[in-house]
Amino acid sequence: MSDNRQLRLGTILHGASGNMSAWRHPAAIADASINFDFVKETALKAEQGKLDFLFVADGLYINEKSIPHFLNRFEPLTVLSALASVTTHLGLVGTLSTSYSEPFTVARQFASLDHLSKGRAGWNVVTSPLEGSAKNFSREQHPEHALRYRIADEYLDVVKGLWDSWEDGAFIRDKASGQFFDPEKLHTLNHHGDFFKVAGPLNISRTPQGRPIVFQAGASDDGKKLAARHADAIFTHHDTLEEAQYFYRDVKSQLKNHGRNDDDLKIFQGVSVIVGKDADDVENQYQATAALVSVTDALNYLGRYFEHHDFSQYPLDEPFPDIGDLGQNSFRSTTDEIKRNAHERHLTLRQVALEAASPRPRFAGTAQQVADGLQQWFESHAADGFIIQGGTPDTFPRFVDEVVPALQARGLFRTEYPGTTLRESLGLAEPVNQFS
Amino acid sequence: MSDNRQLRLGTILHGASGNMSAWRHPAAIADASINFDFVKETALKAEQGKLDFLFVADGLYINEKSIPHFLNRFEPLTVLSALASVTTHLGLVGTLSTSYSEPFTVARQFASLDHLSKGRAGWNVVTSPLEGSAKNFSREQHPEHALRYRIADEYLDVVKGLWDSWEDGAFIRDKASGQFFDPEKLHTLNHHGDFFKVAGPLNISRTPQGRPIVFQAGASDDGKKLAARHADAIFTHHDTLEEAQYFYRDVKSQLKNHGRNDDDLKIFQGVSVIVGKDADDVENQYQATAALVSVTDALNYLGRYFEHHDFSQYPLDEPFPDIGDLGQNSFRSTTDEIKRNAHERHLTLRQVALEAASPRPRFAGTAQQVADGLQQWFESHAADGFIIQGGTPDTFPRFVDEVVPALQARGLFRTEYPGTTLRESLGLAEPVNQFS
Ligand SMILES: Cc1cc2nc3c(=O)[nH]c(=O)nc-3n(C[C@H](O)[C@H](O)[C@H](O)COP(=O)(O)O)c2cc1C
Ligand SMILES: Cc1cc2nc3c(=O)[nH]c(=O)nc-3n(C[C@H](O)[C@H](O)[C@H](O)COP(=O)(O)O)c2cc1C
Repeated sequence: MSDNRQLRLGTILHGASGNMSAWRHPAAIADASINFDFVKETALKAEQGKLDFLFVADGLYINEKSIPHFLNRFEPLTVLSALASVTTHLGLVGTLSTSYSEPFTVARQFASLDHLSKGRAGWNVVTSPLEGSAKNFSREQHPEHALRYRIADEYLDVVKGLWDSWEDGAFIRDKASGQFFDPEKLHTLNHHGDFFKVAGPLNISRTPQGRPIVFQAGASDDGKKLAARHADAIFTHHDTLEEAQYFYRDVKSQLKNHGRNDDDLKIFQGVSVIVGKDADDVENQYQATAALVSVTDALNYLGRYFEHHDFSQYPLDEPFPDIGDLGQNSFRSTTDEIKRNAHERHLTLRQVALEAASPRPRFAGTAQQVADGLQQWFESHAADGFIIQGGTPDTFPRFVDEVVPALQARGLFRTEYPGTTLRESLGLAEPVNQFS
Repeated sequence: MSDNRQLRLGTILHGASGNMSAWRHPAAIADASINFDFVKETALKAEQGKLDFLFVADGLYINEKSIPHFLNRFEPLTVLSALASVTTHLGLVGTLSTSYSEPFTVARQFASLDHLSKGRAGWNVVTSPLEGSAKNFSREQHPEHALRYRIADEYLDVVKGLWDSWEDGAFIRDKASGQFFDPEKLHTLNHHGDFFKVAGPLNISRTPQGRPIVFQAGASDDGKKLAARHADAIFTHHDTLEEAQYFYRDVKSQLKNHGRNDDDLKIFQGVSVIVGKDADDVENQYQATAALVSVTDALNYLGRYFEHHDFSQYPLDEPFPDIGDLGQNSFRSTTDEIKRNAHERHLTLRQVALEAASPRPRFAGTAQQVADGLQQWFESHAADGFIIQGGTPDTFPRFVDEVVPALQARGLFRTEYPGTTLRESLGLAEPVNQFS
């Protein structure tokens, strides 16, 4: 691991910010998930803070119990494309599932975003945790966990192959001779695999970043394996420093199996933050936001992780119920963690639900204290960077105005962008075209 | 038909404009199809001219013989989304195929574009003419023509049903009570058809236009039937006034079968234009652009309509060869027209290929003469409007600067946008939510 590590920062669009009910907060823009002015303002604020990227999560199934900002939100590729023309340096990372899409289309759309943004596109590869997704895509059933990851693995081979359809400099465009492209630099993939048959070539040139940046967000063993082979970055979440360090070591140690170095994959911990003037202020901010979540909302929130299981059937103040294997085929890493935590700490259902729906921010304190926490996690190799989620609707601007300068003053975070592409911000090498 | 008809205008992105080889023109931006600065400039020029919309065509298969600006171009949804945030009134219409996509995803993406643009999204529904498309989407074969249209018909039912998932005003967002939405205004489609099973609801609210505008671009009988049932607008192309009038009457007469009025569907003729100071100037402009196309390029261009048939095997200066049914399952209406025309006018292969690859612009002349032509076609019910394609790379700005004012002076075209949505520009009523 190089001593020259640099901290990196992203932020995530998450409704009005804060917890599932934070839209009720006095400072909240209640329709934030479908309000482009809000999205644009967030992106510009992130760019002002020299952040690496804005991250857009996604899901493919809702019902009346889904959390509010999932019910009505922008589709990732379209909102990121809209941001491409009004920002200049910010990476634009969107979530898209390999279980319910076509690699030719997805390769094209991210390549197009990379061209439109002049090298700032990122794709967060997910396999879709929600069982209900199948019902929106004419499928009999949601593919099971291991199968989803086998599909994702082949899918990424196809997409990367398509992104390499044209070598750099393939388009000559010589007006005098009439030669538009160099046929030697055109490659037809002709992929025939277990799940996909894709001929190519892609109808868009190699992108400004060589290829868009690939994020991965699953934390199971299969998820880590996929990341070690294919990803440039990981979005993950761990509650304790030790768990995060373990995950970090585990994933980095797998890179060599694929001929890769530790620096080739950046691990981002998603962290919620509150910045206040002192401990009381921070606690008050947290309590005011947590109080917005009703128990009913919290039970619905919890249920979504477990295939929309109805938790209202159990007594609230008795130990977390035994629900068997439920959750194994959806958000496996998260549901395992919830069950383990409930068991170890002897929590009641009410406690589990409220903790899940309005968790205490991982880093809460003064700007210097938040910077301390981030520095500690970074320097002790729990993360290469962080994806910041505001713990209240007014946290994120404050993070940029107060915590970013603190990190900059410590020499931990950049004061200028190193270039114009997300790849340059992340310090990743340009991939070699597999055909050249 | 109301006497109060108003002429409407769109323009199409078509590489550098002009014919397939116009990228070689001295005035051409050779990489126009992948140059966002060029695209943005075109959109802003269209908006300056108060045009209704910018239209983006698309295709799902290329090979080394494809025309240059198809080899390397933006994907429609992403480029239109990028335009959404830098334009204010221009409709943004993109082509997307119902043969190789998922209705849930497509419904979401166009709804998202409609929200991002505050009511300016349009979807040009096509069924994909190119046989090779199947090879990029893991399919054994390209569905045949009639089947493609049956799929498209059901697909549009699904998409419209998903767009109606939430009624207007479904999102209450009452911070005090915590009620985010009104469950009475949420509708789950539960579509079970021959080709699709889609539950819904869509995870995005009803859009500013009620629903995005639906264009249709197939000209066969099945295509016209689909349009009469589903479309708000048609993009078509006819060479003569009589053919255009026939098509216009035919489609409009089918509307009553679906309880619709003549005004509910706007028919746009795609027309190529050259504007010059006199007849010589116009002819010189045409010849300079036509001369850029080599015979080899022209044969490739022609071949693409006929499933990439290799026309170089036939003698150039003998009558157009008998190629049987080739083309029936791809661009049927176009290939029928090419064959009929070749036969009736006793054309050689060379003539057919060069005419196809560098056709004479339908309306070429001074600004007043071009306005005369558009006025005649409009007033004689050959079209409700036109999609303007520049016949040379510098035509379109000239069209806006010279022909638009001529049309405005005649009271045929607006001088201000009537509102901010594409639906308002087109004079179309807001659709009723099928569930309310
Ligand atoms: C931090 C984090 C963020 C995630 N974000 C998304 C998301 O936006 N959309 C999605 O469908 N899945 C998301 N996932 C889910 C995973 O991609 C994956 O489908 C699911 O967790 C099951 O895989 P796993 O067991 O490997 O974690 C996320 C997972 C984690 C850990
Ligand atoms: C004016 C016009 C424009 C078209 N634009 C497209 C396009 O951009 N992409 C596409 O795949 N097909 C396009 N098509 C093809 C049709 O949608 C259709 O797939 C094909 O022509 C076969 O249908 P038809 O026989 O009904 O015309 C276009 C057709 C016409 C007439």
